[in-house]
Amino acid sequence: MSDSLSPAFHHPAAEAAIAALSGLFGDRVVLSQSVREHHGHGESFHATQMPDAVVFVESTAEVAQVVRLCVHHRIPMVPFGAGSSMEGQVQAVEGGICVDLSRMDKVLAVRAEDMDCTVQPGVTRQTLNTFLRDRGLFFPIDPGAEATLGGMASTRASGTNAVRYGTMKDVVLAMEVVLADGRIIRTGSRARKSSAGYDLTRLLIGAEGTLGFITELTLRLFPIPEKIAAAVCAFPDLESAVSCVVATQQCGVTMSRIEFADTAQVAAINAYCKTTFPECPVLFLEFAGSPEAVDAEIAIVQSLAEDFGGGGFDWAETEEARRALWHARHMAAYAALQVRPGCKGLPTDVCVPISRLVECIAETHKELEASPLPAPIVGHVGDGNFHLMIVFNPDDPAELAEAERLDRTLGERALAMGGTCTGEHGIGLGKTGLLALEVGEALAVMRTIKGALDPLGLMNPGKLFPKDPVS
Amino acid sequence: MSDSLSPAFHHPAAEAAIAALSGLFGDRVVLSQSVREHHGHGESFHATQMPDAVVFVESTAEVAQVVRLCVHHRIPMVPFGAGSSMEGQVQAVEGGICVDLSRMDKVLAVRAEDMDCTVQPGVTRQTLNTFLRDRGLFFPIDPGAEATLGGMASTRASGTNAVRYGTMKDVVLAMEVVLADGRIIRTGSRARKSSAGYDLTRLLIGAEGTLGFITELTLRLFPIPEKIAAAVCAFPDLESAVSCVVATQQCGVTMSRIEFADTAQVAAINAYCKTTFPECPVLFLEFAGSPEAVDAEIAIVQSLAEDFGGGGFDWAETEEARRALWHARHMAAYAALQVRPGCKGLPTDVCVPISRLVECIAETHKELEASPLPAPIVGHVGDGNFHLMIVFNPDDPAELAEAERLDRTLGERALAMGGTCTGEHGIGLGKTGLLALEVGEALAVMRTIKGALDPLGLMNPGKLFPKDPVS
Repeated sequence: MSDSLSPAFHHPAAEAAIAALSGLFGDRVVLSQSVREHHGHGESFHATQMPDAVVFVESTAEVAQVVRLCVHHRIPMVPFGAGSSMEGQVQAVEGGICVDLSRMDKVLAVRAEDMDCTVQPGVTRQTLNTFLRDRGLFFPIDPGAEATLGGMASTRASGTNAVRYGTMKDVVLAMEVVLADGRIIRTGSRARKSSAGYDLTRLLIGAEGTLGFITELTLRLFPIPEKIAAAVCAFPDLESAVSCVVATQQCGVTMSRIEFADTAQVAAINAYCKTTFPECPVLFLEFAGSPEAVDAEIAIVQSLAEDFGGGGFDWAETEEARRALWHARHMAAYAALQVRPGCKGLPTDVCVPISRLVECIAETHKELEASPLPAPIVGHVGDGNFHLMIVFNPDDPAELAEAERLDRTLGERALAMGGTCTGEHGIGLGKTGLLALEVGEALAVMRTIKGALDPLGLMNPGKLFPKDPVS
Repeated sequence: MSDSLSPAFHHPAAEAAIAALSGLFGDRVVLSQSVREHHGHGESFHATQMPDAVVFVESTAEVAQVVRLCVHHRIPMVPFGAGSSMEGQVQAVEGGICVDLSRMDKVLAVRAEDMDCTVQPGVTRQTLNTFLRDRGLFFPIDPGAEATLGGMASTRASGTNAVRYGTMKDVVLAMEVVLADGRIIRTGSRARKSSAGYDLTRLLIGAEGTLGFITELTLRLFPIPEKIAAAVCAFPDLESAVSCVVATQQCGVTMSRIEFADTAQVAAINAYCKTTFPECPVLFLEFAGSPEAVDAEIAIVQSLAEDFGGGGFDWAETEEARRALWHARHMAAYAALQVRPGCKGLPTDVCVPISRLVECIAETHKELEASPLPAPIVGHVGDGNFHLMIVFNPDDPAELAEAERLDRTLGERALAMGGTCTGEHGIGLGKTGLLALEVGEALAVMRTIKGALDPLGLMNPGKLFPKDPVS
């Protein structure tokens, strides 16, 4: 690495570390501005913070090699999958080495008889489901983005199916992980349940790469249901729609998806996806199971929807129509951003006990009416989880401040209702203040664990924990 | 505490610690031989190891007080609920103070609309379900014993319903925990899902009281299904019965219970419970849901059972008959012990991927035929989890050695098949060697976490970790 070629390194150890890395990985160590910029941000509004270099790893052994080298040089390391994180999880806040795992993209094994599979962390959810399609199985966790499974585990992601299938914590059976000192461990097994010692699998899921880098995942799969039926139902107002969802859950109806969108969000989706959903508060619903069970559930939910003034079900009759419906729903965040082209979005992610959901959304809606910023609402309301996409002009400090105020107020509202500040996006850079508020003294325990497993603090520094220790 | 009254203290700091405890808790500090003996063992074969004293705590603040006092005196502390653990989890291997939480037995809140509740750790599963019965809700996790919910969380327990409802890790939303230094933390929230930082709830579930003492739990509840139907089905041999279960799982049938018992176990149950089940390999089955869904599932499973030579379903028609059926199944471990009165039982607890279950049970059965010890088999086969109760004469070292050999061999067999040595009982004193074999290098990570959160090693010492560090 000649001086004339080297960029302005952010981290003081960067030059030496990159020289050593280049010796091992050759042109898979990339210093170009465009690649570093691409790896310096996810899908959030947070400012890009470039790593000093990106190394494209291709095996667990290589990940361990990179980690040991970074430890030797005392330089931070940040894992990177698809770059679809929502809270600034991939920003290299201290510079350092970005470990791009996207080339570790092999489905290593599918065991149909056990309904599980083993994948490398760079496999995306769509790739996995395409791979599985002919086997009658699917993987249910579906954040909107084309995220990698390693990234989804790291943020404890979920999506529209969580009300039926749970979140990443529920579907990961086992992992291989490279620790902060380069040791490689395996957690869990292919057994469906285990009481064998501390649950390191669950500790590492949601740790956002601050305790170890996931290099392999064994995942539960599910049989594609015999019958699937999806519909959109329009409601006179937000409260009716959400109350209807609450009622279905209290009846024990096990729908596979129950998604809410408010008028602004439906309008945004229609504009972005060229769809023609009714521009009012709607529920997107999916029923799945045996034909008898599906028919019975549809009858119950139709009757409940009528009770709450729902305007009949508009069915997506064909598989193609059903795919189009869910594709449109998954585009919600991107659609919301197009409400004000050139603007950025601050996504909120609260999740509250379902009995408080109507109140929480209604209070939030009221506050939004008094705010100058548009903020379409969409939600996995079967779980009590909903998102605003607060759209603001990044060049206007007042708008950013207003977006952050709305985010903070909503987070505090959810906590006061017994909820959480993040249902599925994680903490990253964006929710550290709310995390401290939410978990209190438990934050000190998290810091103790971080200190024990990554004593040099090199794994994804600046994420998850508030900057100034509060406890 | 006068010398003449004091028993022979096991731990050197016992006398001073007990004097201090007595000053705070008066006659709730108990030194009597009978109480100490009762608290020195669970339901396992492991020799009783008495604590030096038992303190009956009544609040979280008192637990914290006891913990701080034990830390001050550097004396071990062992949590105790119902004393129903299967692997020696409550034995006071270094003496010290037993913290009996059974008087913390209040159901603090039931929120029917959110389908959750908050309980103290001494509430037992039956007490909770009796409390809930009129509300149309139930708590599904059901180990055989009348265990406390704190103990069940500590061992990551499950039971017959796990195939449908999961294990303790899946139904605990939040906890209050007293840490090894007396700090009180709250983990989780009432939100159905969260990505807020490290999953301390899951880390503490299954930690067997080695990282903290659970003083409050918020639990998910479920609607009592509209229709429940239970039946027994006899099979010509073990392979047919287990293969039938595997087939139901691969069809995506969501039965609420699928339990297997071999001929020896059915005979033991019949003798102990005065039941008249057919004395051959059987499945105990339960279907639950909407009447339409239940009827559809019964039709599928009946047809599968016929394919595997199953002899028709013997239905428990009334609720009373159904309760009697599951009571008999829950008595399996006690019934097995009565095969040889005066003997003890070593319970195995392996769990394997379901594709290996037939092979694992068949190989085990073959080995048992060549062993002098009776060992009825019963299992939550829908999960791949099954138990032998190896019945041996505790006064005959050769029999104990043979029981331990069978346990070890079966554990190794399960690990070789990608399974776990413990599906639901935990490690305690009994499975530490197998834990080391199962988790490998991850054991060192567990030790690091233990060292960070309980640096003095006072919380339930001697449990979970093998005596001699293997890594």
